[in-house]
Amino acid sequence: MKKSRFLLVEKTLLRLLSAFIATLLVVGGSFAADKPSGDIVYETEYVQLWSQHGDKWSKEDKDLDATLAAMEQKFGKKPNIIHVMWDDNSVGEVGVPLLNKVLGFDTPRFNKMAEEGISFSRMYTEPSCTPTRAAALTGRLSSRTGMFKVGFPVDGAGLNADEVTIAEVLSAAGYKTAFFGKAHQGDIEQSYMQNQGFDVANFSMYNQFPWITWQAQAGVANVIQGLFPFQWDKEYAIDQNFRPLGYINQLEAKKGEKAKVFSGSGIRDYKKLIKLNQMQVINYIKQNAAGDKPFYMAYWPHVYDPFRKPGTFTTSASTWYAESVVELDRDMGQILDTLKESGIAENTLVVAMADNGPFHELHPIGPHELLLRGGKGDYLEGGVRVPAFAWWPGVIEAGQVSGDMVTVYDLFTTFARLGGAMDQIPTDRVIDGVDQTSLLLNGNGHSRRDYVHIYQGDRLSATVKQQFKRVWVDERPGIVSNEAFTDIYKDPREEHHKMPPFLWAWAPFDRMKVRHERLIEKYPNRPVTYGKPYEGIENLPPAAQALADRVPVR
Amino acid sequence: MKKSRFLLVEKTLLRLLSAFIATLLVVGGSFAADKPSGDIVYETEYVQLWSQHGDKWSKEDKDLDATLAAMEQKFGKKPNIIHVMWDDNSVGEVGVPLLNKVLGFDTPRFNKMAEEGISFSRMYTEPSCTPTRAAALTGRLSSRTGMFKVGFPVDGAGLNADEVTIAEVLSAAGYKTAFFGKAHQGDIEQSYMQNQGFDVANFSMYNQFPWITWQAQAGVANVIQGLFPFQWDKEYAIDQNFRPLGYINQLEAKKGEKAKVFSGSGIRDYKKLIKLNQMQVINYIKQNAAGDKPFYMAYWPHVYDPFRKPGTFTTSASTWYAESVVELDRDMGQILDTLKESGIAENTLVVAMADNGPFHELHPIGPHELLLRGGKGDYLEGGVRVPAFAWWPGVIEAGQVSGDMVTVYDLFTTFARLGGAMDQIPTDRVIDGVDQTSLLLNGNGHSRRDYVHIYQGDRLSATVKQQFKRVWVDERPGIVSNEAFTDIYKDPREEHHKMPPFLWAWAPFDRMKVRHERLIEKYPNRPVTYGKPYEGIENLPPAAQALADRVPVR
Repeated sequence: MKKSRFLLVEKTLLRLLSAFIATLLVVGGSFAADKPSGDIVYETEYVQLWSQHGDKWSKEDKDLDATLAAMEQKFGKKPNIIHVMWDDNSVGEVGVPLLNKVLGFDTPRFNKMAEEGISFSRMYTEPSCTPTRAAALTGRLSSRTGMFKVGFPVDGAGLNADEVTIAEVLSAAGYKTAFFGKAHQGDIEQSYMQNQGFDVANFSMYNQFPWITWQAQAGVANVIQGLFPFQWDKEYAIDQNFRPLGYINQLEAKKGEKAKVFSGSGIRDYKKLIKLNQMQVINYIKQNAAGDKPFYMAYWPHVYDPFRKPGTFTTSASTWYAESVVELDRDMGQILDTLKESGIAENTLVVAMADNGPFHELHPIGPHELLLRGGKGDYLEGGVRVPAFAWWPGVIEAGQVSGDMVTVYDLFTTFARLGGAMDQIPTDRVIDGVDQTSLLLNGNGHSRRDYVHIYQGDRLSATVKQQFKRVWVDERPGIVSNEAFTDIYKDPREEHHKMPPFLWAWAPFDRMKVRHERLIEKYPNRPVTYGKPYEGIENLPPAAQALADRVPVR
Repeated sequence: MKKSRFLLVEKTLLRLLSAFIATLLVVGGSFAADKPSGDIVYETEYVQLWSQHGDKWSKEDKDLDATLAAMEQKFGKKPNIIHVMWDDNSVGEVGVPLLNKVLGFDTPRFNKMAEEGISFSRMYTEPSCTPTRAAALTGRLSSRTGMFKVGFPVDGAGLNADEVTIAEVLSAAGYKTAFFGKAHQGDIEQSYMQNQGFDVANFSMYNQFPWITWQAQAGVANVIQGLFPFQWDKEYAIDQNFRPLGYINQLEAKKGEKAKVFSGSGIRDYKKLIKLNQMQVINYIKQNAAGDKPFYMAYWPHVYDPFRKPGTFTTSASTWYAESVVELDRDMGQILDTLKESGIAENTLVVAMADNGPFHELHPIGPHELLLRGGKGDYLEGGVRVPAFAWWPGVIEAGQVSGDMVTVYDLFTTFARLGGAMDQIPTDRVIDGVDQTSLLLNGNGHSRRDYVHIYQGDRLSATVKQQFKRVWVDERPGIVSNEAFTDIYKDPREEHHKMPPFLWAWAPFDRMKVRHERLIEKYPNRPVTYGKPYEGIENLPPAAQALADRVPVR
């Protein structure tokens, strides 16, 4: 304890010193552009990019500041920000007319959103729900926040209160904040969305599986598919506590208040919830359109409803998956329409994207592995690149297609910048997100990122730099394997490996990894945060209380 | 011989009788629409579609006739037709901005062509060059014409004189006809393009490989890659005739005249040839724009040039392949520009497409396997579905994306229809191509095809009907395998097979196959046509003559 307090003091002194030096440099002016602004601790890689492009980027930033200031004057407030993020889609699955035809269902509203805004071919996420969502909230790799594993009932784990979310950052800068849909940030009280900076929140602690595959209400279909796990061995099931019977999922809460269980855990509750969250989103936009304060809304819809009558299918593909995406498309359209009708479209940034690659375990009736190989959970591009669009009429130039590298955690820093809240970003930890305001406002070719570290859990599995990829797993000790390197332009599916042409990249990638690991030594990763589940819930059902009571805290 | 003459008389009588009955029916009017017009022998499958949709399609056809007649009056001639077809591309490889960014090279002109015309997600070809090109020329599956294998020097085989090509069909209806580029229809005199209906032709007998990998001139690069096969075993090469030394490739000729060897067989000749064919195309358009007669031009460019200095690369992908496609894109744009500048764009149909899926043996520096699995040579969708666009300003509605099924041999019948030459189509053989004029003029959703038989060589490997696919190879005798069925909407990469949901389709697919085979019994496939290579060439070099002389005719 003493040692760590000493370290804290030492770190504070160091920070003051470096701030002092930075001030000198700014005053002196000579090297001011050689580092990102402020005292934020960025990945070394980003700092190195600034050392090459700082002069240009500093100038860009001044112009962007002027643009944003002019807009604030015009609209009387900072821009509203809406982040829509759904599950498990692959690049091209929505928003590309030709691929619509390949797949047998249409996404006219995403296609139109792409026409009216910018679509990204290289939006990187983490490979699964909980990590991506944590990274979006914190601007940090999930390996740093301890949020690197997917939470299921009953986990007794979640997002640590000390993490600073974009909702907290923007709240501090005067934004109203709201969360609707799937949070998947755990079942301990500190992880609840209203305790992580959101004024209002209707959110799930887990993903959709408990609703859609575990419940007897789902009926015959699940029995046929073997998806109903709550049957019992007739003779040998000694531990009656093993199955998480009694779990809950969706909560509703306001900042500073206790949570309430919002929805049942049956399939009908879930079906209603999908529609209800969408209604809440539309109402929230309408209610806050004219307000003095801008708003930040995370809408991470549950989307997928596998329980449908075949007679109700509208798509040629005729899968519950295709039907669900078509509904998502319709809902996305409704959001954009509402923004236009409310007269706030030109002061609202909408980012819409998936949270990771296709959940390919559901093939062939689920999301599709398409042009990129791999899906959810994989370090392959198909696992971590998603369809993504940004829309802001009059601000983002229409009809752009961007090949820039950008990540889900960049949104944290970018939203903070747009909200005038950069000084609310904590400076005592690594922030992986970089400010991509220039990419949004200046367009294709203006990304400030050309690298991404791909984690699976807390393991660094691969690193991408520009068009090159180095896979760290399964390397032969001391030497690379033939699968170690890929040029993802030449080999977008990462199937045709040839090591010799890439041996020039061996040392540069090694250096990247060492720098990355050194920064972790300096700013250690947070371990998983465990706690007692289901605390702080007003109307906790007895079955859920019993479940929480019988789960030992780790 | 007597028997076959009897059969011929019998067939003629039968045809007269059926024509008589057809006339009666037309007069009677009651069943007139139950079959495709004319006496063309179509695949049974197509006749069955007419029995379901004949009334509607007959009406459509009358309207289309009126439209075409009005256009002919306006422009003073039938429409010009240009068929551009290049090698080995996958669906999405050109013409889709987002996929450009995935691959690291841009195809702005194909993207614009797609915006200005219609792009097809399900244009089917045969799985390789010679078969697809023969099918385009004859409107028939290559298994029927004996053109089902890829020709290489020295083959002594080629397209039979009795086959009736689209050039012959349109010539008979008053069109001027021209061929530029890669024909790949064999090295026997009857197969030469000027002997197959083209007024002027500058064409190759084989594909690009002899130029780009066999020649010493290609230099060091080929030696490094092991692509130079004309080295000799130093002790044991007894047969000195085994290697096809002395081969030629590109010929030039006019209808009714002998051919001339046009180009050398070295890499420099080849590089020049690519540019030269493009110039010939541009000149041909300019020279024939104002003429009394419409023209049909097949431009099947050689495109791929693997011998480049790295310093000349313009693409991010930086492969010879990407550079070649970018040049093709530029050339495509030049053609469309020339049509507009010549004032004939509104009376010219341009169809641009690849001839088969990606040549995946060249991965990762060649064409890409993208959203569909498989490539050249495969019965998988990736082998037989290609990027394809049709462009006809003012006639084809701009910006359409079609999910209709259409094939390369449909172009034969469609071009004949547009040229007013349906009565020139032979009626003594099966014609696989169906008239897709309605798809072009009425747009997406108006295809008259919902099936395709996929051959590899002369083996029927798979059959597609609507979104379903049945694979015939590797079936367990008497029962299907798990890989037998695919729903290509749900599983576009044909990777996630599930047999049970498709067992309803077992008998329907079996019936399709039986009907297909019965028609072959009635109209037998032509065997491969063999002959002495290199006859009918004025300036045949002695080495080529020697090669031809030492190859025994089969």
